[in-house]
Amino acid sequence: MKLVTYTRDGVTRHGYVADEAAATVAELGDGDLGALVAAGAGTTTGWRPGDTVGTHRLADVTVRAPITRPTKVLAVAANYQDHVAEGGGAPLDKQTLAPRLFLKPGTSIADPGADIALPSVSTQVDWEAELVVVVGVGGRDIPVEQALEHVAGYAVGNDVSARSVDYGYERDTSSPAVGFFDWLAGKWPDGFAPYGPYLVTSDEVPDPQDLDVELEVNGTLRQKGSTADMIFSVAELVSFASRLMTLEPTDIILTGTPAGVGAASGTFLASGDEMTVRIAGLGALTNRVV
Amino acid sequence: MKLVTYTRDGVTRHGYVADEAAATVAELGDGDLGALVAAGAGTTTGWRPGDTVGTHRLADVTVRAPITRPTKVLAVAANYQDHVAEGGGAPLDKQTLAPRLFLKPGTSIADPGADIALPSVSTQVDWEAELVVVVGVGGRDIPVEQALEHVAGYAVGNDVSARSVDYGYERDTSSPAVGFFDWLAGKWPDGFAPYGPYLVTSDEVPDPQDLDVELEVNGTLRQKGSTADMIFSVAELVSFASRLMTLEPTDIILTGTPAGVGAASGTFLASGDEMTVRIAGLGALTNRVV
Repeated sequence: MKLVTYTRDGVTRHGYVADEAAATVAELGDGDLGALVAAGAGTTTGWRPGDTVGTHRLADVTVRAPITRPTKVLAVAANYQDHVAEGGGAPLDKQTLAPRLFLKPGTSIADPGADIALPSVSTQVDWEAELVVVVGVGGRDIPVEQALEHVAGYAVGNDVSARSVDYGYERDTSSPAVGFFDWLAGKWPDGFAPYGPYLVTSDEVPDPQDLDVELEVNGTLRQKGSTADMIFSVAELVSFASRLMTLEPTDIILTGTPAGVGAASGTFLASGDEMTVRIAGLGALTNRVV
Repeated sequence: MKLVTYTRDGVTRHGYVADEAAATVAELGDGDLGALVAAGAGTTTGWRPGDTVGTHRLADVTVRAPITRPTKVLAVAANYQDHVAEGGGAPLDKQTLAPRLFLKPGTSIADPGADIALPSVSTQVDWEAELVVVVGVGGRDIPVEQALEHVAGYAVGNDVSARSVDYGYERDTSSPAVGFFDWLAGKWPDGFAPYGPYLVTSDEVPDPQDLDVELEVNGTLRQKGSTADMIFSVAELVSFASRLMTLEPTDIILTGTPAGVGAASGTFLASGDEMTVRIAGLGALTNRVV
């Protein structure tokens, strides 16, 4: 089931894609998908959609991020070997490392189709096509073997990243800590975590480690990978994160990006550029940079 | 005005301290202080409390964190020179650096008086007494001179921090990135951001840079500083953060800790330890480690 959040007549509502060919959505109620996800949507808890309250053409509504304000926006750095390599890093040995998690603020969420403003603090803004995991059932210390049972579904995402930040005065960057905090800050600007257009429920994604991921900028293919090449799998990321903190329904996790980011070739986003991320079975996410 | 969120008869409610000597609270309504803060409470927007719906003794209610789930939990590292020094760092020159911001997850929030569980992933859990700023009026690119007008009020906080993490297997820690991501993860466990007991409105804190901050563990004074010694002031932190991302009402910012953390002497928290943070005029925040 492709669950979808959208605005119709100025009100946020949710439903599911009723007919893909006709591009219609069956409305389930007001608000975003948060309440449905908290009620077990997409997981193996036996959740079934309630009665629909009408059908609308997707063209007549404005699709939004599935959970407009996730309870947490977790993301992982360096989770594809080819992306590590293009950044000049040595191959990572999964046996002797831990997933490199970081947080993005709620204000970084952007809707599918939304314009993303280049921030004043960077001229090196880059794309990162990523599979997004939506947590449906919370928990602590979730074993890897049970982790996928906690996933409500998946979406297409883009971990937009400023590769450098410039605050308008000369700084001493000799301490490695400066580079690290700049790196973090580069993940936070408004709109730097667009995702959607659907929350595709887990039952429609039998193997999250077998999904083609690609990203185009202005129609030119820039990233082409597969979730098969993740260093830490979705199940391992969910399990790992839950050892550090309680995961909750409506948390989301951006799972890392394959090779092909702009930084590797010194190509950065400019006003007017259009990014489209596609993941097999999950749809396409397009955002324009302004 | 000392605004307060509390649970009474199993329901979260909010009010203000009506009589300090008698320790009574005048109830304003249900829910936490979020709606009041969003309505301008504590700022210069002209907000006044509505009608009260009864008075209760503070002893008869359970005080909670003022905003139980802030929209963002921002925090700053290395914001007191004496804390930088005790960690072995060279003095920081404010003219050539930027505030070192990071995010904590919503699940790190803990109520005043709540037990904080030592996480399974660390044996080096430490305290950090901090002034907490509650954002009342949101904004982007807020000038330093106007930044305090965006602050609803202040609270006592503790940026509890795991100084090392151990995931149960031997890792290659030769890359500096490993240390950084471990440092971040050490800020995230459940309950590692207790704050409260009050949200003291800005009008009662004429100068946030002139507040004594201290922390005791089991009655022994461990930290004793003043917000006068912050490297970046509250106004500078609010302004800086708003250059990176939109600040919103009910965001909170932990503003850094003075010297005296446990790591400096190799002293870490053990089950049964009781931490009390006091900030002049803002009250005392006590949490027990279990």
